[in-house]
Amino acid sequence: MNESLLARYHNTRQASVDYCSPLAIEDYGLQAADFASPPKWHLAHTSWFFETFLLKPLLPGYQQQHPIYETLFNSYYNGIGQPYPRAQRGLLSRPTVAEVLTYRKQIDSAMQALLTAPDAEHVDAVIERTQLGIEHECQHQELFFTDLKYSLASNPIYPAYREATRHGERPVGALRWQEFGAGNVDVGHAGNAFCFDNELPRHTVYLHAFALADRLITNAEYEAFIEDGGYRRPELWMADGWSTVQEQQWGAPLYWLDGDSGAREYTLHGLIERIPDAPVCHVSGYEADAFARWSGARLPTEQEWEFAASQAEGPTGGVDSGHLHPKAACKSDGTLQQLYDSCWQWTQSAYTPYPGYKACEGAIGEYNGKFMSNQLVLRGGSCVSKAEHLRSSYRNFFYPPDRWQFSGIRLARDTG
Amino acid sequence: MNESLLARYHNTRQASVDYCSPLAIEDYGLQAADFASPPKWHLAHTSWFFETFLLKPLLPGYQQQHPIYETLFNSYYNGIGQPYPRAQRGLLSRPTVAEVLTYRKQIDSAMQALLTAPDAEHVDAVIERTQLGIEHECQHQELFFTDLKYSLASNPIYPAYREATRHGERPVGALRWQEFGAGNVDVGHAGNAFCFDNELPRHTVYLHAFALADRLITNAEYEAFIEDGGYRRPELWMADGWSTVQEQQWGAPLYWLDGDSGAREYTLHGLIERIPDAPVCHVSGYEADAFARWSGARLPTEQEWEFAASQAEGPTGGVDSGHLHPKAACKSDGTLQQLYDSCWQWTQSAYTPYPGYKACEGAIGEYNGKFMSNQLVLRGGSCVSKAEHLRSSYRNFFYPPDRWQFSGIRLARDTG
Amino acid sequence: MNESLLARYHNTRQASVDYCSPLAIEDYGLQAADFASPPKWHLAHTSWFFETFLLKPLLPGYQQQHPIYETLFNSYYNGIGQPYPRAQRGLLSRPTVAEVLTYRKQIDSAMQALLTAPDAEHVDAVIERTQLGIEHECQHQELFFTDLKYSLASNPIYPAYREATRHGERPVGALRWQEFGAGNVDVGHAGNAFCFDNELPRHTVYLHAFALADRLITNAEYEAFIEDGGYRRPELWMADGWSTVQEQQWGAPLYWLDGDSGAREYTLHGLIERIPDAPVCHVSGYEADAFARWSGARLPTEQEWEFAASQAEGPTGGVDSGHLHPKAACKSDGTLQQLYDSCWQWTQSAYTPYPGYKACEGAIGEYNGKFMSNQLVLRGGSCVSKAEHLRSSYRNFFYPPDRWQFSGIRLARDTG
Amino acid sequence: MNESLLARYHNTRQASVDYCSPLAIEDYGLQAADFASPPKWHLAHTSWFFETFLLKPLLPGYQQQHPIYETLFNSYYNGIGQPYPRAQRGLLSRPTVAEVLTYRKQIDSAMQALLTAPDAEHVDAVIERTQLGIEHECQHQELFFTDLKYSLASNPIYPAYREATRHGERPVGALRWQEFGAGNVDVGHAGNAFCFDNELPRHTVYLHAFALADRLITNAEYEAFIEDGGYRRPELWMADGWSTVQEQQWGAPLYWLDGDSGAREYTLHGLIERIPDAPVCHVSGYEADAFARWSGARLPTEQEWEFAASQAEGPTGGVDSGHLHPKAACKSDGTLQQLYDSCWQWTQSAYTPYPGYKACEGAIGEYNGKFMSNQLVLRGGSCVSKAEHLRSSYRNFFYPPDRWQFSGIRLARDTG
Repeated sequence: MNESLLARYHNTRQASVDYCSPLAIEDYGLQAADFASPPKWHLAHTSWFFETFLLKPLLPGYQQQHPIYETLFNSYYNGIGQPYPRAQRGLLSRPTVAEVLTYRKQIDSAMQALLTAPDAEHVDAVIERTQLGIEHECQHQELFFTDLKYSLASNPIYPAYREATRHGERPVGALRWQEFGAGNVDVGHAGNAFCFDNELPRHTVYLHAFALADRLITNAEYEAFIEDGGYRRPELWMADGWSTVQEQQWGAPLYWLDGDSGAREYTLHGLIERIPDAPVCHVSGYEADAFARWSGARLPTEQEWEFAASQAEGPTGGVDSGHLHPKAACKSDGTLQQLYDSCWQWTQSAYTPYPGYKACEGAIGEYNGKFMSNQLVLRGGSCVSKAEHLRSSYRNFFYPPDRWQFSGIRLARDTG
Repeated sequence: MNESLLARYHNTRQASVDYCSPLAIEDYGLQAADFASPPKWHLAHTSWFFETFLLKPLLPGYQQQHPIYETLFNSYYNGIGQPYPRAQRGLLSRPTVAEVLTYRKQIDSAMQALLTAPDAEHVDAVIERTQLGIEHECQHQELFFTDLKYSLASNPIYPAYREATRHGERPVGALRWQEFGAGNVDVGHAGNAFCFDNELPRHTVYLHAFALADRLITNAEYEAFIEDGGYRRPELWMADGWSTVQEQQWGAPLYWLDGDSGAREYTLHGLIERIPDAPVCHVSGYEADAFARWSGARLPTEQEWEFAASQAEGPTGGVDSGHLHPKAACKSDGTLQQLYDSCWQWTQSAYTPYPGYKACEGAIGEYNGKFMSNQLVLRGGSCVSKAEHLRSSYRNFFYPPDRWQFSGIRLARDTG
Repeated sequence: MNESLLARYHNTRQASVDYCSPLAIEDYGLQAADFASPPKWHLAHTSWFFETFLLKPLLPGYQQQHPIYETLFNSYYNGIGQPYPRAQRGLLSRPTVAEVLTYRKQIDSAMQALLTAPDAEHVDAVIERTQLGIEHECQHQELFFTDLKYSLASNPIYPAYREATRHGERPVGALRWQEFGAGNVDVGHAGNAFCFDNELPRHTVYLHAFALADRLITNAEYEAFIEDGGYRRPELWMADGWSTVQEQQWGAPLYWLDGDSGAREYTLHGLIERIPDAPVCHVSGYEADAFARWSGARLPTEQEWEFAASQAEGPTGGVDSGHLHPKAACKSDGTLQQLYDSCWQWTQSAYTPYPGYKACEGAIGEYNGKFMSNQLVLRGGSCVSKAEHLRSSYRNFFYPPDRWQFSGIRLARDTG
Repeated sequence: MNESLLARYHNTRQASVDYCSPLAIEDYGLQAADFASPPKWHLAHTSWFFETFLLKPLLPGYQQQHPIYETLFNSYYNGIGQPYPRAQRGLLSRPTVAEVLTYRKQIDSAMQALLTAPDAEHVDAVIERTQLGIEHECQHQELFFTDLKYSLASNPIYPAYREATRHGERPVGALRWQEFGAGNVDVGHAGNAFCFDNELPRHTVYLHAFALADRLITNAEYEAFIEDGGYRRPELWMADGWSTVQEQQWGAPLYWLDGDSGAREYTLHGLIERIPDAPVCHVSGYEADAFARWSGARLPTEQEWEFAASQAEGPTGGVDSGHLHPKAACKSDGTLQQLYDSCWQWTQSAYTPYPGYKACEGAIGEYNGKFMSNQLVLRGGSCVSKAEHLRSSYRNFFYPPDRWQFSGIRLARDTG
């Protein structure tokens, strides 16, 4: 069996536990919204994934220790049974943190057995699903950070997840545009490396001539939008976006605090003074769209983004850099920056199947395909993504009003 | 000024009133849901449209008679001011029906003046906006029927809007597929005739090889889906669709009644026995998608539909046929039938702007553009559409869970 | 059979129709809230009551004409079957107004037959239930006015039900108190005349010494409460009242409009300037209680009110006076005024059964008894009550947050 | 200063901590409903009470350590400021359990100083408020158990708070009635010992002749009600109760589980087989009322209960017995049993002020008075009450639909 897969398995599993090390036991159960799962639940669910899709079907003689975990830690796989209600994950004080860590070890030990000596007939399936399980756990590591940030933010004490590393911010240059000509191009994952099913099949699309901003929109630029009445002018918004602004009484990105203490922002490093040149983040798709309209531009399509990114440098930085908040762009040479390491970038593209898309057979086919309605594609990656988990064909997706991810704005415009 | 435009103006205006003739006064105020406006409101709002976008800005010396109508009969144009709440339109017992009809006459008389002798500098604007106002009124005529049907259906008496004309149904043949090859094609409105802004600009897209069903899915075919557990099998549904099925407890299309009296359906001609070979209608986008998945096919993209339809016969039939319920397909020669005269056809395409799309300036720009989020495109037309109002590039749009339109299912599949 | 009963039957029935005469047909279906039934529904339901509890069980050979009305016009009698949902009464455009008036005539004609020649064995039941049906219709006449007022008020046109009769307002004197000593007294209905079951049995209670205000609180006095921050000071309110103030954003009684046009109030005679010396009305039980606390007094118990009223002049005035809004008190001699003809008076007494209370057998027993939870008793009567329908032992009841009745404030306090 | 007060202070404070000893750290933050506060919050809030009403105003030089606790741990005292939202108490992972225990020690140490050497002029206030703070903490100890039970029950693991002590159940005898004659009696607290303000003033009421059941209704008797269709027969219910049954789909008391594993019940000792002769508990006021109606009896008034209990034996048993679930009655001699040690007993009395009631001045006056609307009085005590905290004049109060307290049924009936 593949040594590097085994190593990657253990590294990934260890990282999930390591990320929790700054937490108090009391933090592991926090759930401040339906969509924000508790840390402990992420630890358990990622283990459940390996147990459900690898150990039970593929490890001969495997005995599950905790039958009720099948229900408690199922996220949304109807093929496995009725999951425990998502909104109530924070109510599971038992199993305790210690019990969940024990569960993780049991799974790891069984996975070690499986990966070391898989049945000959299942080798391919074991490799494929282990890769999927690893990427799945990377996704939950990112959610761990965004969910935790959301839940901690409901506490007026504004606890820091951990102290910030020092880093100097340098001023960003004016926005510059990189241009691309019209024509047929191929998008979707190419090659044999791992990708999710939703990145396939690679296929031809026709792109009209366009230009893409070289960097993300900054806090200062977004403040100008607010000062110009951005949140009070319906003509800048999609109708559904405007309704959301009214209902939620939005007047700024999530986590912004403005008041007597000046312009501040809640981050995983605690409350900080807002940095004007850092990218604006935690904006919804509606806000991204309204900002783009206000500035006379538009959001890119996911095909435009992918085509442009496929010609640029690949992912680096992200969560492994240790700084869990996006930093200001540092170059000003017109090349595309902040593609993967700062904020996910809203596109104007609805999340729909590629031509010829096929979901996997069985419950594992529920992974991606069934979410292809009402959501928008985001591209890139963020300061809490693992760089090795990303690529230019990666399709992230959220609902237009969602704001708790590290989501920002890259502008596009028509040319020619 | 264009004689035929004036004639078309008066014909359209008269049709709105004629459609109301079977109603009791008590019916004019009915509103059984937020989205279902009362007949009286449609009569008033379509007049408001001409008053707001033509008479006030373009007829010198025009005096509005009822300042409060500006608020009461504004639908959603924030540029004109805060509209009276949509959900409360049924609470406006005043102005009475007679007063609204008087209002219509006042508007018509002023429009006659404007169209007969427009200011030289505004001739183009007058023509353009009058055309838009006419098409706008055609859209509201269709909504008049679908809204009225919805509201009458909440009455256990199940009142008929009007008696059915007799018509024989013949058995439909097996579903056949028309095939189309891959390549770049142009979609979007071509030529100088009227179209909505969302049909522009005409632009190139790349289509993969596909096939389109020659007719719509029938009631009998949909019953087979239900009998096969269609509404109880989550693997057939989008996640949001499955949630909707659970919450709304859907088990059949809207208006189906099954019980001791057999398989029945509420129609504008009253409760009838369901006709197996007639197209299924009043299904949501989620149901259309689940049915397609169950049958091993998929929904078409809007570009596929348009490209195929652009090569087929244009719109005929519809509301002017007098039969206000879709009829069974009558040919079986493999050519595309029921494109425009039966049910709108859900596509898998999100309603988004075409490349290079520009909304009009001012409040009238709110007509289409601001709805380009969270909705799906439907193509074609229905038994309550006016044929002359339709064309192959026409983009209708509703939310995936919406069911009160005459919406049905045309399948597509990948080939080659 | 009793001639006067027959006469009273016909007079009452005619009054219901007469009260509708100022309405447009469009008004008959109005329902602006769950609790506000449309005029047409009141006309039909009061007929349903006679049909259900008299004609069907007691008139041999009676044939119901419209079986579906049994469901449509049942209010809340589970013993009769599942009623059509209360919140949807406004959606019944059919039967039309003309059809409901025909239904009324059919019932009246059958009732005439029953009352003229009842079965010997059922004479008592016929008389008793006819009396109940008449009083029931009087209650619905009052609801007709309060529901209609509520529904018309949702129209920014603020339609008047009918023009006001002229009447001069004279200044009221300072509030004076009438004192009552401690001791055992009897409360509950005495004598053989009609009363509702909830007024029985007459029974002994011990009253502590108390005083009662001689007149109702005026608009001017209530304005002083508002100006003193009444709606912003939680210490003046019951906890549930304070929550309601926050949620509903109350800042004044229902129907008050304050703005550039001065202090106005919507009445059944249209928008008027608010009269400082007229009684404040359309306040909830919470507001009445908070006002009383602010003024250093309290609300009376229902026993205190009844004992005091039983020694005062009986009911006069009310709806038959033709003025459908409460007028200022006109005497200042310390005797109790405005007991029955202005506004119902909130008490601090929960609506609970009297000691030994028994509801009637069968579905008619649902009339009063099942509402004896969560409601407060109001005593007296109002400007839209029929005087002959009232008495000192009459118990009206509404939920503490209800405001759409003509409900006002009479203060009490402890003495001795 | 009073030695015994100091001892009682420390004993009570220690008990709150002791009750938590079986918990995992993860349990301290659990909140499964708005009304169910987490254990940690109870620990903090009871300390906040002493800090707010004693230390800050009455201990010279007292410095609060954690200004934000003033907001976080305020329950509902608007006079102190806007409390942190009740529904979000479970989101406060910080302060941690250890920090809250430190807070408790800081308060205890300051209270020790205050109680040892109070200012001469404040001695009375210090004693009075310390007594109130102690009784307040006793109330929260009971809520600790009922809230914890509710929150743990949302976990399909059904964790036990702690193992049960063994105890044998003996069969109960037939229900017997104790009779009381009519006449004036005095109710309300008498004497100088501590009582809450809502038990005053003692006052005269007239009681009609009545009888009271000698014991509580058992599970077996309640099962007979269910089997007789109790939850499906609207004629047995208050209208609001019936609506609640429909909306909540109630078919049994809270915590009952019936299925393949037989008749079970969740208790603080885990899932157990239901004991037929043990008192039914966790029923709402609506269910108690419906059961009483079904059995041809009624609920007692609070005055009847108090008058009867004042002649019976005082409180014993309760939480100090160590068995945290009600046990079967053990005598059958017709004397009143289970008054204080099993389940609180719903009365038919609305929670309203006694004649002449006055709340305290200032924020502390919000303790009881502002809840005197929409709630019912319960009398007695429960298996999780401290016996020394109870007395015959004690008025507990909850909303009619509430079920998470140990609330049961004692019947009454009219006699003579």
